[in-house]
Amino acid sequence: MRAKTWALAITQSVLLSATVHATESNTQWVDTFIGTGGDGHTFPGAVVPFGMVQLSPDTDNPMRGVSPQPEIYKRCAGYHYDDHTIVGFSHTHFSGTGHSDLGDLLIMPMTGEVKLDAGNAENPDIGYRSRFSHDQEWSEPGYYGVDLLDYGVKAEVTATTRVGMHKYSFNKAKQGHVLLDLTSAIYNFESKVIWSDIRKINDTTLVAYRATNGWARNRQMYFAIEFSKPITDYQFYNLDNNRYRCMNCLGKDSKHSTIENTAVKMTAGKAVKFVASFDDLDETPLLVKVGLSAVSRKNALENLKTEVPNWDFDTVRANAKSQWANYLDKVDVEGTKAQKRQFYTALYHALQAPNIYQDVNGQYRGVDGEIHDGKGFEHYTLFSLWDTYRALHPLLTYIDPDRVSGMIQSMLVHYQQSYEKMLPIWSFHAHETWTMIGYHAVSVIADAYLKGIRDYDIDLAVEAIENTANNPVYDAIPEYKKFGYVPMDVLPESISITLEYAYDDFAIARMYEAMGNTSKAKDYYRRAMSYKNVFNKETGYMQGLDSKGNWDPEFDPFEAKYMGPYTEGNAKQYSFYVPHDVAGLIELMGGDDAFEARLDALFDTHLSEEMIKEHEDIAGLIGNYAHGNEPSHHIAYLYNYAGKPWRTQERIRQIMDTLSSDKPDGLAGNDDVGQMSAWYIFSAMGFYPVAPGDLSYAIGAPQVPEVTLKLANGKAFKTVAKGFSDKNKYIKSVKLNGKPLNRSYITHNDIMNGGTLEYQMSSKPNKAWGQSKTQRPPSLSEYK
Amino acid sequence: MRAKTWALAITQSVLLSATVHATESNTQWVDTFIGTGGDGHTFPGAVVPFGMVQLSPDTDNPMRGVSPQPEIYKRCAGYHYDDHTIVGFSHTHFSGTGHSDLGDLLIMPMTGEVKLDAGNAENPDIGYRSRFSHDQEWSEPGYYGVDLLDYGVKAEVTATTRVGMHKYSFNKAKQGHVLLDLTSAIYNFESKVIWSDIRKINDTTLVAYRATNGWARNRQMYFAIEFSKPITDYQFYNLDNNRYRCMNCLGKDSKHSTIENTAVKMTAGKAVKFVASFDDLDETPLLVKVGLSAVSRKNALENLKTEVPNWDFDTVRANAKSQWANYLDKVDVEGTKAQKRQFYTALYHALQAPNIYQDVNGQYRGVDGEIHDGKGFEHYTLFSLWDTYRALHPLLTYIDPDRVSGMIQSMLVHYQQSYEKMLPIWSFHAHETWTMIGYHAVSVIADAYLKGIRDYDIDLAVEAIENTANNPVYDAIPEYKKFGYVPMDVLPESISITLEYAYDDFAIARMYEAMGNTSKAKDYYRRAMSYKNVFNKETGYMQGLDSKGNWDPEFDPFEAKYMGPYTEGNAKQYSFYVPHDVAGLIELMGGDDAFEARLDALFDTHLSEEMIKEHEDIAGLIGNYAHGNEPSHHIAYLYNYAGKPWRTQERIRQIMDTLSSDKPDGLAGNDDVGQMSAWYIFSAMGFYPVAPGDLSYAIGAPQVPEVTLKLANGKAFKTVAKGFSDKNKYIKSVKLNGKPLNRSYITHNDIMNGGTLEYQMSSKPNKAWGQSKTQRPPSLSEYK
Repeated sequence: MRAKTWALAITQSVLLSATVHATESNTQWVDTFIGTGGDGHTFPGAVVPFGMVQLSPDTDNPMRGVSPQPEIYKRCAGYHYDDHTIVGFSHTHFSGTGHSDLGDLLIMPMTGEVKLDAGNAENPDIGYRSRFSHDQEWSEPGYYGVDLLDYGVKAEVTATTRVGMHKYSFNKAKQGHVLLDLTSAIYNFESKVIWSDIRKINDTTLVAYRATNGWARNRQMYFAIEFSKPITDYQFYNLDNNRYRCMNCLGKDSKHSTIENTAVKMTAGKAVKFVASFDDLDETPLLVKVGLSAVSRKNALENLKTEVPNWDFDTVRANAKSQWANYLDKVDVEGTKAQKRQFYTALYHALQAPNIYQDVNGQYRGVDGEIHDGKGFEHYTLFSLWDTYRALHPLLTYIDPDRVSGMIQSMLVHYQQSYEKMLPIWSFHAHETWTMIGYHAVSVIADAYLKGIRDYDIDLAVEAIENTANNPVYDAIPEYKKFGYVPMDVLPESISITLEYAYDDFAIARMYEAMGNTSKAKDYYRRAMSYKNVFNKETGYMQGLDSKGNWDPEFDPFEAKYMGPYTEGNAKQYSFYVPHDVAGLIELMGGDDAFEARLDALFDTHLSEEMIKEHEDIAGLIGNYAHGNEPSHHIAYLYNYAGKPWRTQERIRQIMDTLSSDKPDGLAGNDDVGQMSAWYIFSAMGFYPVAPGDLSYAIGAPQVPEVTLKLANGKAFKTVAKGFSDKNKYIKSVKLNGKPLNRSYITHNDIMNGGTLEYQMSSKPNKAWGQSKTQRPPSLSEYK
Repeated sequence: MRAKTWALAITQSVLLSATVHATESNTQWVDTFIGTGGDGHTFPGAVVPFGMVQLSPDTDNPMRGVSPQPEIYKRCAGYHYDDHTIVGFSHTHFSGTGHSDLGDLLIMPMTGEVKLDAGNAENPDIGYRSRFSHDQEWSEPGYYGVDLLDYGVKAEVTATTRVGMHKYSFNKAKQGHVLLDLTSAIYNFESKVIWSDIRKINDTTLVAYRATNGWARNRQMYFAIEFSKPITDYQFYNLDNNRYRCMNCLGKDSKHSTIENTAVKMTAGKAVKFVASFDDLDETPLLVKVGLSAVSRKNALENLKTEVPNWDFDTVRANAKSQWANYLDKVDVEGTKAQKRQFYTALYHALQAPNIYQDVNGQYRGVDGEIHDGKGFEHYTLFSLWDTYRALHPLLTYIDPDRVSGMIQSMLVHYQQSYEKMLPIWSFHAHETWTMIGYHAVSVIADAYLKGIRDYDIDLAVEAIENTANNPVYDAIPEYKKFGYVPMDVLPESISITLEYAYDDFAIARMYEAMGNTSKAKDYYRRAMSYKNVFNKETGYMQGLDSKGNWDPEFDPFEAKYMGPYTEGNAKQYSFYVPHDVAGLIELMGGDDAFEARLDALFDTHLSEEMIKEHEDIAGLIGNYAHGNEPSHHIAYLYNYAGKPWRTQERIRQIMDTLSSDKPDGLAGNDDVGQMSAWYIFSAMGFYPVAPGDLSYAIGAPQVPEVTLKLANGKAFKTVAKGFSDKNKYIKSVKLNGKPLNRSYITHNDIMNGGTLEYQMSSKPNKAWGQSKTQRPPSLSEYK
């Protein structure tokens, strides 16, 4: 949000919408540009909470196989803050991913000569792209606007759950065009579009379809497009011998043919585009509605007509904002503007996915490719679980427990519909990509179940967890069960997989324990100890081990090579991945002091440039601690388990100060569909779920003066950081509802009971607080 | 059917099936090889009446852009009698078309080394194709078998409506393979497969999918494949850098990857194949069931399990034969073996399409691409209407009026679901190809309606007819209405289109008249006279006319060039296309004798080789009369209208003797989805529907001694050709139920009332019979 124009935007919404909040909502603090610089990979466009449509400007669409990979990686979300041209507005975007796809149905308004190719940023005039300036760019939750400088067109977009709405003010131009480019895509490559079609069904309405083969194979998307003014002229283009041939122009200039009915207002193929031309654009802005569906054109039309029945851009925009206000106002933050901007933008980014993937009539496309009637629950997609089980899903249990049940039910139908009988791993848009490792869906389910969120089929959940954790076709599970670890001669990333399976098994054990199934709980608690099998006491690291029991002879604790024993990380980082039994890990590593030294070594080691370059996904470094990637996210909290919470307090402040800001490049790495943001939110409140499912939160150090979390049970949980300042980064003492809290963790019940967690901050550490073993966060070896 | 083996086949069926007819049925006379030679374009494989599955051997699959066009054209139905190798068995085939598509899911058994490419006919050993011999090839309705000589495998196939069943007897080979080649297609070309996938869901079951872009764009087909024995080994292949890479072999020979889950038993892409290997094949034959669906994999499985629940090949085969017997026994023919073989094979070919295109649960894919619940009616596809409105659809009104209602209801939902609000033109598999001209669906509906077949939505039918005959986006209808003809400067084939529209309008007028809507009837009777607008009295031909009223200055009555003024024909032929008002045409052409001379000129003109070569679809020539293509089909009957029925009698015999036999090349041209066969059946009985919708049939000359048509109303209509012989080709006199019939036509009511039409045949013409104006078949100018 650019400050100057924001006030005007608000005023408009208030005037034009009855549903907008009467008082200033926390939406005012969101800056949708945070994360659009650096490698945050967020997008600045219009989306409602958990919306199916993410309508956002794409600043470039470099082609795989043509452009260098970093150029493509930079634009995982379509938009990058460094760019100076916009190629158009597309309707689907990931928020913060490290690989990408989507960018469905790019629409671009233009004036003058019709251009069919986007051109390039160096010479924008040769293509349809337009220059833009951040000074003439505006956004707020659910809204984005920009002046397209090359055309004198002000383009604005807003959205409902399933519909994107565009508003193009052509100003002085009487005539103009709107291009629909069905070839444009994110992480695009030459043959990515498998098939597409577009059809004009009357003077204002089109329907379109596209199947792409990207991260998801043969991903289906249907579109209904409606214009507020009649199309006065139009051209269908279809790639023919490497040039775009106008399909219907032939009918004007020369004879029709009886072979190809050029009078039929549609074209289909592997590369098609459509240009609509309009008159009288100087009178009122041109509005465009785009309904999406993964099921059918008919559903796309129904979604459009149901969610946006009228031509009232401002009401749609106000409603989108109102939805965000409802969510963002669940949390009240006191602090500086910068702190509020960071906090609420993090919350905004945390509430985008998993997103609705279902039509208004209930139908959705399942991972089996079939159309299902999703009566009785909301169906969600986009489970970036290797990232989000850590903090995002635990956060959602407080922000919107109802949606958590819907997300779990969605994972359960995924299980049922999957041919492999697996819960999702990294799935989106009816496809399992098998990206990353672990079976972390079980962590999400167990954490929610243990917190009493149970509005889904519990028996099915147990079945799904069992079949997932014992699945014969997934990443060496049979060998994991047989050897107690994944042998490095069976599968790459064997150490990371072993450690993450062990944690997941802990979560399963916890759930069985809560259900009273002690026998099953015991089995999984045993599996949860598998981490010990890959700890080499000689080297002191979690180290590759083959099926004959030989340690990896080429072991290098700094090595983070692709398809090595670790996943987007090295032994230095992954050796700390025993979140459910840190006490056991400390014992293996030689006790509290040795453990502290190991943690310090991680943070303080100077890393070679070579190692830093090794992988694009390891970013946000403090020494060898990589805040930009998930395997590090719990590590700063581990000092608590060694009785040194003041060291955690130091590290959290260090991370916040060096790797986080309210600027476009304010994210230390990919936001990873909200996980990075969820880390920030928990950490800013002063605690973090180190091992989701154990229902405890290690206390770090609050990073904002005050946060009030309004819970779904009607209670509120408030954190107050008394004396919080730049200097006062340490905790002197803690009170929970007025009573001294000497343990260095809080529990889920502490939160749900409501009340106030009061930290007394200090410039000096209180080394006594949380020091004794009973005051440390729980660990499996201890509480079992 | 090879005579020797047929007895055995029958015996097997009788022994193994309870449903087979006790007495020898007329299926015995069908030779499924008739039409597989020459340009008949029929297939010899297994199909049930109007079945969705046509499981048949493909003898070659030449690629467009690689092989010469005649080689491709020759194999429109996959199989050609000239060929000596078989590439496999695919599950969908057109019968008799002049353009093609389909050939879905080619399956080929093999022994020894696994081969992935078909190779070529010159050197079959380099590919998976096998030599075969017509001496070791057997077929009957619903069954086909062949010895695959290169493998020592006897391959047999049979079918239900939605399921194909294979039986592979490996004889001495203990081990063997079955290849599923998802790249194979009829009229194939490099990028025809848009997307495909195949997945192994257990040891005996696979599901697969393919979308192709051929004659139909983005045509969807789903498959469920079940084997009678467990697969002992398997390989998925996917095209990668121009070679087929084994997807799951990698998992055996080297490490798995966490990026691509090679343990998942599926592959997907633009070129995929699957090889299943089996042991113990010497014990019992391997059976394969393949369920098809245009809707989903789930429906394909349901179709399979519903229609073929058991592993009993012989019962499925006997049931298929029994279904054919039920149809073929509706007609009893007396005559020579050759006559019976011709007649029943023609009837067999006439009862294949339009074919069911709907799953057992009622769902079908509509022309809008959407899935519809087709409760309450059977949904059909494959409307080759430019061909089949002439005689096939009129024939079906006698053979199975219930199915006619279903076909009409299917055309009506096509109308509703089409974005253009048009009845089908040339549609199949949820796609309108816009092939050929006219809006002949109206003829099919009017003819059925006038015959009292009305089990469909009549109001909707009227709406559909109106919107079709006045459609602004179809072949120059607005100009046709404005000018009274299609100007040649607006659209090619303008004369043919004008003439066929005029006939279609006559059919509409007849229907309105029967409904009592005289105002509408008058409008369309007026439109039906449009043929007069393109008759150039100077040249005496139907001649191209531009929008300014100028006759085509480059007019050549023999010219039949592509995209000229005529459709697969020339002025010589098309000038006779006024089937609804032959009397009016005769007047234009100068009276009876001049008309007779014009007809004779057509039959007797010697045609240059150049002209013959001009178009592949003009075949079966007698002079310039082209029996192999539809515009000629009514012409021999036109002598009746000039009071010279004996000349028709001569011509019919001439056509029968020279252009029709019971040999593989016994069809004079493409069977055109049964139209050529329907011409044969009517003509053999001695009459023909010159203008469907006028309810009269011009009498020609019977070509078999006796035919009994068992009608759905319980009555029977019998034709007896007394004294029929090689010499006695002329009609001396005719009796209808014992009373002399002096008119040269019969009516629909004559047929439906049942009884006997007795022709007294003679070696000399009776020039007096049917000579007077009142005795001639009706023409619009006269009876109005």
